[in-house]
Amino acid sequence: MDLNADVGESFGRWTLGDDEALLDVVTSANVACGFHAGDPTVLRRTCELAAARGVAVGAQVGYRDLAGFGRRFVDVAPAELTDDVLYQIGALQALARVAGTRVTYLKPHGALYNALVHHEAQAAAVVEAVRRYDPALAVLGLPGSRFLDLAGRAGLRTVAEAFADRAYTPAGTLVPRTEPGAVLHDADEIARRCARLATEGRVRAVDGSDVEVAAASICVHGDTPGAVGIARRVRAALEGAGAPLAPFA
Amino acid sequence: MDLNADVGESFGRWTLGDDEALLDVVTSANVACGFHAGDPTVLRRTCELAAARGVAVGAQVGYRDLAGFGRRFVDVAPAELTDDVLYQIGALQALARVAGTRVTYLKPHGALYNALVHHEAQAAAVVEAVRRYDPALAVLGLPGSRFLDLAGRAGLRTVAEAFADRAYTPAGTLVPRTEPGAVLHDADEIARRCARLATEGRVRAVDGSDVEVAAASICVHGDTPGAVGIARRVRAALEGAGAPLAPFA
Amino acid sequence: MDLNADVGESFGRWTLGDDEALLDVVTSANVACGFHAGDPTVLRRTCELAAARGVAVGAQVGYRDLAGFGRRFVDVAPAELTDDVLYQIGALQALARVAGTRVTYLKPHGALYNALVHHEAQAAAVVEAVRRYDPALAVLGLPGSRFLDLAGRAGLRTVAEAFADRAYTPAGTLVPRTEPGAVLHDADEIARRCARLATEGRVRAVDGSDVEVAAASICVHGDTPGAVGIARRVRAALEGAGAPLAPFA
Amino acid sequence: MDLNADVGESFGRWTLGDDEALLDVVTSANVACGFHAGDPTVLRRTCELAAARGVAVGAQVGYRDLAGFGRRFVDVAPAELTDDVLYQIGALQALARVAGTRVTYLKPHGALYNALVHHEAQAAAVVEAVRRYDPALAVLGLPGSRFLDLAGRAGLRTVAEAFADRAYTPAGTLVPRTEPGAVLHDADEIARRCARLATEGRVRAVDGSDVEVAAASICVHGDTPGAVGIARRVRAALEGAGAPLAPFA
Repeated sequence: MDLNADVGESFGRWTLGDDEALLDVVTSANVACGFHAGDPTVLRRTCELAAARGVAVGAQVGYRDLAGFGRRFVDVAPAELTDDVLYQIGALQALARVAGTRVTYLKPHGALYNALVHHEAQAAAVVEAVRRYDPALAVLGLPGSRFLDLAGRAGLRTVAEAFADRAYTPAGTLVPRTEPGAVLHDADEIARRCARLATEGRVRAVDGSDVEVAAASICVHGDTPGAVGIARRVRAALEGAGAPLAPFA
Repeated sequence: MDLNADVGESFGRWTLGDDEALLDVVTSANVACGFHAGDPTVLRRTCELAAARGVAVGAQVGYRDLAGFGRRFVDVAPAELTDDVLYQIGALQALARVAGTRVTYLKPHGALYNALVHHEAQAAAVVEAVRRYDPALAVLGLPGSRFLDLAGRAGLRTVAEAFADRAYTPAGTLVPRTEPGAVLHDADEIARRCARLATEGRVRAVDGSDVEVAAASICVHGDTPGAVGIARRVRAALEGAGAPLAPFA
Repeated sequence: MDLNADVGESFGRWTLGDDEALLDVVTSANVACGFHAGDPTVLRRTCELAAARGVAVGAQVGYRDLAGFGRRFVDVAPAELTDDVLYQIGALQALARVAGTRVTYLKPHGALYNALVHHEAQAAAVVEAVRRYDPALAVLGLPGSRFLDLAGRAGLRTVAEAFADRAYTPAGTLVPRTEPGAVLHDADEIARRCARLATEGRVRAVDGSDVEVAAASICVHGDTPGAVGIARRVRAALEGAGAPLAPFA
Repeated sequence: MDLNADVGESFGRWTLGDDEALLDVVTSANVACGFHAGDPTVLRRTCELAAARGVAVGAQVGYRDLAGFGRRFVDVAPAELTDDVLYQIGALQALARVAGTRVTYLKPHGALYNALVHHEAQAAAVVEAVRRYDPALAVLGLPGSRFLDLAGRAGLRTVAEAFADRAYTPAGTLVPRTEPGAVLHDADEIARRCARLATEGRVRAVDGSDVEVAAASICVHGDTPGAVGIARRVRAALEGAGAPLAPFA
């Protein structure tokens, strides 16, 4: 099992999250690329921290929207989105190289992540960027999303992720954030669910039934108080359950 | 002899210069990297145009200042400047790769170009970026600048450039733009000077004396009316004088 | 009748349109406010040119998206959109004041203009900004749009505009740009239609029928070759038809 | 005596400082205007918090440099700097108005603050912006700076400030940050110095001598751990010494 988290999201004078602590926990680091967050110095330092810990570096690409932190859908033309993604991957690659590591996968961020679940043209545009840049890069995303589906058809290696702190429907999809109980807060419960997911490939859905969730990576967070503590608990639970932790890429 | 020009400086809705015509003339293209000009789609298209013509692609890196077009000195800390340059090179490299070519040299833009003539710390910062990213990249700059001097000491290949439309002092330096006669406008005269520079390594200085100018590349412009016409005349004059035209990189 | 056009859309080194010529023709100037185009110096100069000609100054507010020129829908939260619009109006107001004039109306730009036709929450957000800033400001927009409807209900003065170069359906709405014949190119025809619109309140629809179009302003363009010429023809035709030209605000 | 502090410097997802706590302490709020920090929603909320506490609102204008937080000198042409400052004042004014207050003074931020101490042309450019926008606005700055001198000559009301946590030379200037002891950290000492400054107009200089410091405002900070606590101590000491606290504007 792999643990991934968003890092490198500070910008200039503004610090976000405790990247150093989080990079002690995860095996894959989704490093921001400057469009929604992350300046070049932040990118480099984050890659250095990841490299020192053997954590895999992924390009966390987003819409060009610092003010919105990439959390607002932007109706970018697909051809331009492809180029925006290429630009971001290349920029991060340069800083990763200097930090002694390299970009091995891509994960879309925020509103782009959400858009790619259903938005055929934008999903195809991001897949096209990866395929053209380096078809050996893996892509990390939501199981069942158009993005992973199109990436698979394009011959890319796809990695499905589960969310440590999200409730699942009996159909195996995420309970929408607008519904009560969508986000879990109890660290013990979160850790237990993740351990079961890693060992059995199942979680308890909101209706009490068991549902299969095929995920090779679990996404944890680090940008809220207590988040790093939860991430540590998840890691400890996985290790305690005998699930070997390693980057997928 | 090599002919270089700044291209890829359009941005979004705004077009600047006639890149396509200019790329028919030059042998090296200084492609903007997004910090002072150039969006990802512009970068890609410019690289495609360059690739189709066998024109070498260089990273024209600048200060992060779209509003000022990189023409205002910014007192960036050296370590951050190194990272800003790495980011820009990497971003362009990704678009160049997809366009079927690659970045083979770096040229600083605008106020950064001017700063690197004397600003030791910023010059060292840019050299450090190239050295760490890929010491096989050449650097293009002003003869006698701290930048080329430090780049040479760092083991980088340095290429000195002359300016087609600028007057020279008897010492072989540029006549400052603030002085009368600093910029030449007569296309015939410009073309003749360039031909002589390419064949004899000399130009007539403002005082009428001859001065040696050791340059392996001549910089021409494309962003003013008539500029492309002058560039064409320079190229024709060089070819007429039997000076073979080829990228230095 | 009023003639309006978008101006002040240059940015830094990049020039767009011939504002000076266009401001000789129109009676209302939709001045960009820096979010999709227009830097502070451009705003000031544009306001000075408008003031010298007695042309009314309107705030042409847009999404925060220089790279996309405000032509891409951005899913901004309504409360933030209200604040973004306030920021833009205030900024332009300061430059207008120094130029000896003032902002008297607001017109949304590009993708925001299009979104406000149907997007209830964003339309309400822009109305809220105007209402809170100064309920004496008029708003200029598309007849039948949610924006004008909500503005009217909020007690704002609403001004409906027609488009000089667009074809109309028998229902009085614009023929979508994706359909053939949506955009008119013949200067004579455009001028004649505008004169008839101004004197009779009617245009010939695509099916040959006559349709009523209640508009107090006609939008002309200046950012394409020949556009200023067409605008001049429209103005001459209106004057020839005895329709007095004056700013609505 | 007035107490001023920088606030409104959060941006989008990134929070900086505890503005709410700081606004309980100070009497004048230097609110960022979006160029170095502060998005429109942050500006509005900050103005609302200030208005609710009767704290005066000032425009904290800076270079257009989000990535550098306005802490890097930018060699902006004076005419453009004037327009940049006008744009920022106007933008903040609109949000202040909606928040039920208004901008009553201007204070330059970061590298601009430092530049205006000696940079004649940039100092004159900022003064020109205030004079043209509203000569009733006060300007807050460093005693002895070119900025305050030129502002005074232009007929603006000038307010000199002292720094709560900075050491002074016997000449009454700040000990440069590069020298040891330049920044004070002991809360008691800082509070005592401020009380003496407010009641006697003097501080103890680094050489042990007493030096007169004519300041109508004391600048406190809020962006480092413990900073708000120090600010509270300063306020309590001033109140304890019988120095009435009130905005200068």
